[in-house]
Amino acid sequence: MLSRSNVNYEGRKPRRVANSNAAVAHLPTFEPAKITPRGPQPMDDGGLPPFSFVSLDMCQSENNVNHRTSVYLHKRLVVRRGHEFFLKITFSSQYIEHTHKFEVEFTIGESPDSNEGTHIVLEFALGEINGPWACRVVENVGNTVKIGITPSPDCIVGKFHTYVVVDAWDGRHRSPIDENSIIYILFNAWCSDDDVSLPDESQRTAYIMADSGVVYTGQAEQFSARPWEFGQFEQNILDYCIDILDDSKMSLYNRGNVIQVTRKVSALVNSQDDYGILEGKWRGSYAMGTAPTAWTSSVDILEKYATTKSPVCYAQCWVYACVFNTIMRCLGIPCRVVTNFCSAHDNTGNLKTDIVIDENGRMLKERCKDSIWNYHCWNEGYMKRGDLPVGFDGWQILDATPQETSEGIYCCGPAPVKAIKAGLLCYPFDARFIFAEVNSNIHYHLLKPNGTTEMIHIDKTYVGRLILTQDVIPNAAKDITNDYKPLEGKTPKISPP
Amino acid sequence: MLSRSNVNYEGRKPRRVANSNAAVAHLPTFEPAKITPRGPQPMDDGGLPPFSFVSLDMCQSENNVNHRTSVYLHKRLVVRRGHEFFLKITFSSQYIEHTHKFEVEFTIGESPDSNEGTHIVLEFALGEINGPWACRVVENVGNTVKIGITPSPDCIVGKFHTYVVVDAWDGRHRSPIDENSIIYILFNAWCSDDDVSLPDESQRTAYIMADSGVVYTGQAEQFSARPWEFGQFEQNILDYCIDILDDSKMSLYNRGNVIQVTRKVSALVNSQDDYGILEGKWRGSYAMGTAPTAWTSSVDILEKYATTKSPVCYAQCWVYACVFNTIMRCLGIPCRVVTNFCSAHDNTGNLKTDIVIDENGRMLKERCKDSIWNYHCWNEGYMKRGDLPVGFDGWQILDATPQETSEGIYCCGPAPVKAIKAGLLCYPFDARFIFAEVNSNIHYHLLKPNGTTEMIHIDKTYVGRLILTQDVIPNAAKDITNDYKPLEGKTPKISPP
Repeated sequence: MLSRSNVNYEGRKPRRVANSNAAVAHLPTFEPAKITPRGPQPMDDGGLPPFSFVSLDMCQSENNVNHRTSVYLHKRLVVRRGHEFFLKITFSSQYIEHTHKFEVEFTIGESPDSNEGTHIVLEFALGEINGPWACRVVENVGNTVKIGITPSPDCIVGKFHTYVVVDAWDGRHRSPIDENSIIYILFNAWCSDDDVSLPDESQRTAYIMADSGVVYTGQAEQFSARPWEFGQFEQNILDYCIDILDDSKMSLYNRGNVIQVTRKVSALVNSQDDYGILEGKWRGSYAMGTAPTAWTSSVDILEKYATTKSPVCYAQCWVYACVFNTIMRCLGIPCRVVTNFCSAHDNTGNLKTDIVIDENGRMLKERCKDSIWNYHCWNEGYMKRGDLPVGFDGWQILDATPQETSEGIYCCGPAPVKAIKAGLLCYPFDARFIFAEVNSNIHYHLLKPNGTTEMIHIDKTYVGRLILTQDVIPNAAKDITNDYKPLEGKTPKISPP
Repeated sequence: MLSRSNVNYEGRKPRRVANSNAAVAHLPTFEPAKITPRGPQPMDDGGLPPFSFVSLDMCQSENNVNHRTSVYLHKRLVVRRGHEFFLKITFSSQYIEHTHKFEVEFTIGESPDSNEGTHIVLEFALGEINGPWACRVVENVGNTVKIGITPSPDCIVGKFHTYVVVDAWDGRHRSPIDENSIIYILFNAWCSDDDVSLPDESQRTAYIMADSGVVYTGQAEQFSARPWEFGQFEQNILDYCIDILDDSKMSLYNRGNVIQVTRKVSALVNSQDDYGILEGKWRGSYAMGTAPTAWTSSVDILEKYATTKSPVCYAQCWVYACVFNTIMRCLGIPCRVVTNFCSAHDNTGNLKTDIVIDENGRMLKERCKDSIWNYHCWNEGYMKRGDLPVGFDGWQILDATPQETSEGIYCCGPAPVKAIKAGLLCYPFDARFIFAEVNSNIHYHLLKPNGTTEMIHIDKTYVGRLILTQDVIPNAAKDITNDYKPLEGKTPKISPP
């Protein structure tokens, strides 16, 4: 018998896929020219002083202001993609255009590859050039060149190493690897070409920059606001977010795709399948951990997970949603916590909530697969849906609470809020399940003595009676029920049925 | 620190979901009436002889002919859903309509529930009734009643236990559990209401009933036909197919849904993720197992997997496809093996096949994520797609070879062939990847000395140049290239891009 450890779990991929920011490619500091020029070698470059790399200044304070990243308590440069940032390179002599050739390189992961966006080479031989990443010389004073670099608005989000390469007659001289030259590149809601582009500044302030807020809980008739510290800019949080994606082995190639990143994070926030951040508990004692109601900050949870590398105990829906919110805002993705009051849980996928009762009208819990929660929290992330036909950009539902497996994994979304309202449930991801949460009818079944049931009543208005999120106006709740469903009584035509 | 074993891997489902045909509910043989009638008890039923269950005849030979299941080498009754089968029940006295009350019950799994289709109760009190499952009395001769039962055309596919219940004055008397009364219910391509309905008899013969065939391999210019024994009717194969689904913990509730069943089986045929049937190997030595080219029969492979419960070594694409074909046909789903010559493998999901070459035109394998196989085999299953807008019923691509993870699991499809041809890639499942296999352009990139690449040539015709399957005419290949793509040169407009 073949033992489990002998089994080769890779598919037929021709090569391994880079999946970690932490794994670093070691590029040589010198690559000799392939053909050594014959004859007398231009040792002194025709009388010019030698031109070689001396130092790199990341212009952190200037870039931080331009990129609205001063808030991050992080010692490295943090920028948003699709927007220019500046670097100052000091050489051993003044840079002379058309004579000197240098390149700025960015790499991420263990196997930099320009076809995959993990190796970016910007050539400064010919002055300004435009590619997926744009670059230009901004200033050339003394021995220092100030350059402007605009990462492409769909580039990988993560931790890049920066190198300066001088092309000399004998080969390419690369600056040594240097921790100080690491750049963190984030999603950019301020950039119209970024898939997370959010045009309204008050929304950007509320849904990316706000690092604390409230979650609505309780009953639809009398809800309360539970305060929460998202803390996305706190010390180490950005590194934790990147580590979590690295630990999941998500390929770097997909890390710039907001649809894939948000779906992946919705799986990683719960401990199911992937040994993720939070362990849920809805019954029994919380003595082995912290009661879900005792948490008030994502920072404590992420700190604990980073230290122990074990799921943190215990969460319920709002805890999952708040930690998810922190990771999204930290990566630069507009995100908010949403509460659905009277939230149905359609275990059976039939878009109905089936409740079985006895002849006295008592609910028979052991016969009911489906259930209704007094409230359930999830998130909305703002993004374009280039994978769908036109019309589904905007807020997308994402739910990190482990309710049902989606394609074998506990994750949920992104699903366009507009598709839920229109009843268009064939578009990915998980629209049917979410539709039932806000819009399913409750079918009451009477259990008969021979074990069969008879449907005796349908309630069309109970489920999803109020859906709230925090408004852009501080301390105000925003009723978004009508974003999810037509006015009550009008059930959308479901397509396909 | 919390150890891994302490982690509770269930979501917040209120109860456990039945997922095994093997787990049997033990129903009581007597359920007393809730209110015992007062006064003199009708011990002799008003002078009539006692009416109780004696025996059940599964009418196997008659049903086997009507259901085209005589071919299964199986000692139990095998029927197809949506089509009437007969049972003969012998009682202790003659059945008198309106006086005697009996029921026929079918259960599957450990927790029979009428809301989930795992508990079917057919009442014969009032003669013929119609529900999702229809039933009628066909004959009433002596003490034996012949009944006709038509399972609903969307019922669960699997192994049902049959019980006869007599409703008497004192309560319900149920026949004891009996291995001989097990019924296997399959998908039914002959039934127009079944999602696998296939109207053409020659196609049903070729794609459900044929238990051997060929797979096309080699080169497009000179392909060869490799013979294969599918063996779906052989001893034990039906039980193995059900066991494989049971081992995967797929909920019984979804076992009647052909979309979910086929997608699940596409994951289970490869060993990745789920310790499935076949272990792939494309390089190196096959000494630790059987070379992929040495297999000629699915039966040997399924036997070996059932005995060892370990992945069978080794497979390549046609082996995966042939085993998948066996399981589909065994369960009653129309299925065929398809070969795509010059099949692209778009690892990067960009719908292009990127090939990097050096200045001498040599392919640089270590720089190419994407690749092109001289041929690749997958399957097509025939089914309705009620989850999609109108227009996508028919053949669906399913691929059990572990190439890329789909939603974190190595599985692929079902994807409508019509959607691939129309370039409509937003519909589930995995249409983008399959589109690239048959229709991507090859982009040749020249590697430059500084590590960047330049695109120098696009080849639009090489990939997917011929797609073949076995025809309904014996020993003939059917060219289905034009089912997948417009005539060469015309690339479909991809939507979304």
